Amino acid sequence: MTPALPAQSPAPRRRGRPPRAEGAADVPAARDRILTAARNEFAERGYDKTSIRGIAKAAGVDPALVHHYFGTKDQIFGAAVELIFAPTMGAPDAVQGGSRDGAGERMARFMFGVWENPVTRLPLLAVMRSALTNEAAAAVLRGMIERRLLLRMADELDVPNPEFRAQLAAGHIIGIAMLRYVVRMEPMASAPVEDIIAMVGPTLQRYMAED
Amino acid sequence: MTPALPAQSPAPRRRGRPPRAEGAADVPAARDRILTAARNEFAERGYDKTSIRGIAKAAGVDPALVHHYFGTKDQIFGAAVELIFAPTMGAPDAVQGGSRDGAGERMARFMFGVWENPVTRLPLLAVMRSALTNEAAAAVLRGMIERRLLLRMADELDVPNPEFRAQLAAGHIIGIAMLRYVVRMEPMASAPVEDIIAMVGPTLQRYMAED
Repeated sequence: MTPALPAQSPAPRRRGRPPRAEGAADVPAARDRILTAARNEFAERGYDKTSIRGIAKAAGVDPALVHHYFGTKDQIFGAAVELIFAPTMGAPDAVQGGSRDGAGERMARFMFGVWENPVTRLPLLAVMRSALTNEAAAAVLRGMIERRLLLRMADELDVPNPEFRAQLAAGHIIGIAMLRYVVRMEPMASAPVEDIIAMVGPTLQRYMAED
Repeated sequence: MTPALPAQSPAPRRRGRPPRAEGAADVPAARDRILTAARNEFAERGYDKTSIRGIAKAAGVDPALVHHYFGTKDQIFGAAVELIFAPTMGAPDAVQGGSRDGAGERMARFMFGVWENPVTRLPLLAVMRSALTNEAAAAVLRGMIERRLLLRMADELDVPNPEFRAQLAAGHIIGIAMLRYVVRMEPMASAPVEDIIAMVGPTLQRYMAED
């Protein structure tokens, strides 16, 4: 299959790179543009309502090019989820980057930093919604988090059952995020994030660093 | 408005009550049947895809009767959510029913007991899905949990910021439930529930009973 040339809107300029003329040399740019469009479509519409055709339209390319680079809808969802979760991938380094005593607080501070920022929060919420309402989306998310995030985290934990411990910690953060950012239950929704970190940090510490 | 007589299927027999003939004396039975139908429709289809008309059809009554007893779709959703959350309403008593030292473990045991039972779990998951994908459903859920569950719980906690503490505890349980029952991430999905209670109990203890 020959990748079609981008069809509609010009590529958006990306910060930090000079604009380039469209053409055969823009295959990497087209691939990036498809991936960005996929992230935005899944974040705005959720898994069920996003289509390869819609992604192609948003990226200004032929649908065949989306298939060519990414394969099935599940596969491009997986690639978009990896992009969306990229900001969370620093969590294992945050846990490792200091004294063992402070690991729980560093983890809480890092993860709530990601959640407090709307730019990173909104696509994460969209992925959670998709996983809650669609089994195919749940399977993609499950595989990605297990493979990329929790196993790496568990590798660095010196406790019994490190995968289980890492999931207790992740589950805690996800549940607080649901109450604070989705259901927006008070007082959780308006509590200073430092108050949350102060309470959740010692819990994560116990899960991740204590027997 | 005169309540219409039940139109289609006969009332399902309910355990513990003798069957009764249909007729004007069955207004309470019709109301119960509508509420049960609403719970089932919301649990199976979610908030967005459930309609007053569909509830009426499942209950075997005229849609006007659903409006008559329950009002708007949001109002009948609220009534169905109360029915769905009824099994969780024993949580404050579980926390109070024993030594202060054991409050966290009792809370964890009570709540995971509710979640482990598919009969109570599946409608709860359906409500969570609805709240995650629809703002009107989130508002109903928020009001019900704040008013009925967390405030009662907070009343019985002798700690600073009891509402905040109760929400930290609730958020933890909800997040673990998402990983275990929805995303089904391993090893959380297959872990013995006693292992979860053993880890989560001390966390709930700290949130609910320690400064």
